[in-house]
Amino acid sequence: MALGEFDLIARYFQRPGHQLAQRVVLGIGDDCALLQPAQGQQLAVSSDMLVEGRHFFSDVDPMALGHKALAVNLSDLAACGASPLAFTLALALPTADATWLGGFTKGLFALADAHGCDLIGGDTTRGPLNICITVFGQVPSNTALLRSGARAGDEIWVSGTLGDARLALQARLGRIAVPDYALESAQQRLDWPTPRVALGQALRGLASAAIDLSDGLAGDLGHLLRASGVGATLHADAVSGLLACPWMPASERLDHVLSGGDDYELLFTAAPQEHERVLGAARQSGVAVTRIGSIEDQAGLRLTDAQGQPIKAQLSSFDHFL
Amino acid sequence: MALGEFDLIARYFQRPGHQLAQRVVLGIGDDCALLQPAQGQQLAVSSDMLVEGRHFFSDVDPMALGHKALAVNLSDLAACGASPLAFTLALALPTADATWLGGFTKGLFALADAHGCDLIGGDTTRGPLNICITVFGQVPSNTALLRSGARAGDEIWVSGTLGDARLALQARLGRIAVPDYALESAQQRLDWPTPRVALGQALRGLASAAIDLSDGLAGDLGHLLRASGVGATLHADAVSGLLACPWMPASERLDHVLSGGDDYELLFTAAPQEHERVLGAARQSGVAVTRIGSIEDQAGLRLTDAQGQPIKAQLSSFDHFL
Repeated sequence: MALGEFDLIARYFQRPGHQLAQRVVLGIGDDCALLQPAQGQQLAVSSDMLVEGRHFFSDVDPMALGHKALAVNLSDLAACGASPLAFTLALALPTADATWLGGFTKGLFALADAHGCDLIGGDTTRGPLNICITVFGQVPSNTALLRSGARAGDEIWVSGTLGDARLALQARLGRIAVPDYALESAQQRLDWPTPRVALGQALRGLASAAIDLSDGLAGDLGHLLRASGVGATLHADAVSGLLACPWMPASERLDHVLSGGDDYELLFTAAPQEHERVLGAARQSGVAVTRIGSIEDQAGLRLTDAQGQPIKAQLSSFDHFL
Repeated sequence: MALGEFDLIARYFQRPGHQLAQRVVLGIGDDCALLQPAQGQQLAVSSDMLVEGRHFFSDVDPMALGHKALAVNLSDLAACGASPLAFTLALALPTADATWLGGFTKGLFALADAHGCDLIGGDTTRGPLNICITVFGQVPSNTALLRSGARAGDEIWVSGTLGDARLALQARLGRIAVPDYALESAQQRLDWPTPRVALGQALRGLASAAIDLSDGLAGDLGHLLRASGVGATLHADAVSGLLACPWMPASERLDHVLSGGDDYELLFTAAPQEHERVLGAARQSGVAVTRIGSIEDQAGLRLTDAQGQPIKAQLSSFDHFL
């Protein structure tokens, strides 16, 4: 690229005035970065790769892309209750475009700074646009939220709203026509997801299991149920009500929310006696939570209507996730 | 891809019978992996991205590629003296090809197991072939080898041989004609680099600075000199002698070795009084080391002939690295 790799790193990714967090012993510029988690803490690690044309459109606002690339990784830390420490960024770029790099790093560092999460290293190379972030957090030993802890009787909760990102994606792909008034906020949800980092930490010692919602409610709940060796019944009305967008007809909402995708909300379970504490943790974290069902011993995913009657029609369509 | 993401992970990347290392609390399968470095240890982190057509040819043996993708990351751990713990792998694949995946993971896990370095997580997606590995090691606090510790009077050392990988690359690109007898071992060096992990650890408390040679001797030495705020003089004959391949004419060797690239050997400095201990560390690690020059206060890179006379001709061509 016209701008050399080392110039590019120096200009866009090194931040001379930036004070590194206490746990970052050594940042960008050597063969390795050095981290020192506090005593009694475990290091939580997650990695996500975003590919042009698959995870984002080629004309996406680079600032939003910088935000989202880190947000989806922070969402994984949130799901295990970890506090963000640092991240590495490996970036393949077709060209070193100053406008793109300026926007991308602006969105990236704004979110990083909001979470005290330092860029400590990585790689830049020429190639088809590809963004690979590995994020590091710390969590007190043996307190990480896992997918495997859900038990029969636990309540199933979801943070925020679901399905709006998918709505924006489908509109963008021309599969549905969404009026402008409804599209703008849905588009925000697709482009600028909010990782629920504070909620994840507040749920330590409270939630029995957790997962972040990236592939859709039914699929991700399926992962949690299998890891825990349990099943679940969801209340169809509660699920349908998770869509923030007022435009979609009621009859289409259930399927839409269950399929979802790109939500980056937390799905978690907690014992019923923790109900009030869960609501308190959500208030303290500044995000609403909704109880959408219960964990049961019987494997599989079931849906009930407002009268508690099974909804048979929807069942089969989600069997293949389970 | 025909094979779903989760099937692909289960078939090729999860290893049911595999015993995780002690420091890996949680491996593949949750939102995050969990690591617990031993007390008094810092976590060393490095990330490298390999792109098809840039870092490897599209017809490369997938087993060699799996080896090399991890080897270049382990080489960064070696350069800071860290012991490998674990790694994440993010992989973009155009198709889920069983033969390719079988070969790639065979090469990857053979090297990983040789170093007790567990795959703990990552990501798989469809996209132009891209391999992003982030590797984790541990190093006793404040003992990591850095680029910045070289001091005037220190001896400059290199492990193994240099320039052979570049020879194979240039032959492959049709830029030079190398006879078969010379090409085979050079090709091995390009495709199957050996990360100097044991040597890196043996050099803790002994070397004053270190860097791994990935971009070529002159360029990487330049990084070390700048980080340390010093200069160096290299012995031209010692540098020329680093090429293992017997075929290249003596007159071309110096330039070739200085430019190098893809060597994945260690370049390090140590005080002259540590000379014998350096040789001992190398013997213990099963790799030869060669003293190629000395660190000096005066900035810049100089070359001398066997009589200690400056070689002026080569000087200018390396100025732009310094």
